[in-house]
Amino acid sequence: MRPNYAVALDVPLSPEVVEELRGEAWGVKIGIPLLLRVGVANTRELVRGWENVICDLKLADVESTMVSTVEALGGLCGGVIAHALVGRDGALDGLKRSLEENKVSLYLLVSMSHKGWDDSTLEAALKVAEAVDPEGLVGPATRPWVLRRVREAFPHKLILSPGVGAQGASPGDGLCAGADVEIVGRTIYTSPDPVEALRKIKTYAQEKLMSCEGTAP
Amino acid sequence: MRPNYAVALDVPLSPEVVEELRGEAWGVKIGIPLLLRVGVANTRELVRGWENVICDLKLADVESTMVSTVEALGGLCGGVIAHALVGRDGALDGLKRSLEENKVSLYLLVSMSHKGWDDSTLEAALKVAEAVDPEGLVGPATRPWVLRRVREAFPHKLILSPGVGAQGASPGDGLCAGADVEIVGRTIYTSPDPVEALRKIKTYAQEKLMSCEGTAP
Repeated sequence: MRPNYAVALDVPLSPEVVEELRGEAWGVKIGIPLLLRVGVANTRELVRGWENVICDLKLADVESTMVSTVEALGGLCGGVIAHALVGRDGALDGLKRSLEENKVSLYLLVSMSHKGWDDSTLEAALKVAEAVDPEGLVGPATRPWVLRRVREAFPHKLILSPGVGAQGASPGDGLCAGADVEIVGRTIYTSPDPVEALRKIKTYAQEKLMSCEGTAP
Repeated sequence: MRPNYAVALDVPLSPEVVEELRGEAWGVKIGIPLLLRVGVANTRELVRGWENVICDLKLADVESTMVSTVEALGGLCGGVIAHALVGRDGALDGLKRSLEENKVSLYLLVSMSHKGWDDSTLEAALKVAEAVDPEGLVGPATRPWVLRRVREAFPHKLILSPGVGAQGASPGDGLCAGADVEIVGRTIYTSPDPVEALRKIKTYAQEKLMSCEGTAP
């Protein structure tokens, strides 16, 4: 297994750096702060050529607002992340339909990476996700047991995993627990050399993967 | 009691209409779709002079992203709405601190207005809200029993209530169940005469309030 990374862009990096990161990463994750700071059009320009552009607005609203939000992104995203816990009727069912019409993938967040997140809701979130049948899931690298449960529930879905770096997980923790792609933000975009930072993370993850493969789910 | 309304602007209305609505409404609620469509600067221009500007991005992310999002809004909002269910440590506690420093009010959403929302999380959300101690709460006009529970838990906090109009509740339903302000969006911004639509809603709510006052919580 190759260590796949999505670079979280919460702040703009120079077009040259973003372009160089493209050669090293699986994809790029766009956050609300970037969209508000530079606008949709400039963000589209910045990530031109990337194969996987995931818009992470943590959608958690009623159907009409989520659909309207994705429309306002005007084709920027190949995938969007929404909270599973908003539920189906009047929310995710309608979002899924709208995304399918526009050939945008849905990734459902079933658990978050920070300490205050309450995982007593995990099974309910997984149940919603099973019914909605998204393209992929999002679960935390900071709590590998949660990620293993997500992988168990969805053996064949793509799993994205934040929490590596500033949030406390080490590179490879998410991959070893069953994720396909780790998401890294601050460690990359606050580095004086973001491309080198990503390369180091990948090297570290590669070594960790060698020690966990075979034991990973 | 006077029927107080917040106008949800998910799409831009003309500056003249927005200005006229100001004379009739308690406040304006700004959604992500509007911010993405017209940008932060134009939105600020559109709501200049409004006393209560509530930015409703349904924040539901880790602390650093929520704080960065509010920073990117650059003083546009007097208040922001966040999901109680993201929890405190690494999320709402830090957001609250940052908002206090910037004199922005926090409103915590403890239950949503659509059918698919699962209110088995209500008590957990109220518990988070009690610990975070926000300026106000957000609960659904479509499920008055939930709103009554929110009012019971927070006798003295401001409660905002969406769900009136397109989502099924009648004007006054939220106010009669204990809310201070009802939020109306589509019924107003899709009307050929938004100001007249708001006036009609207020008249309807006023009548309903006369019949429920004394019985309301």
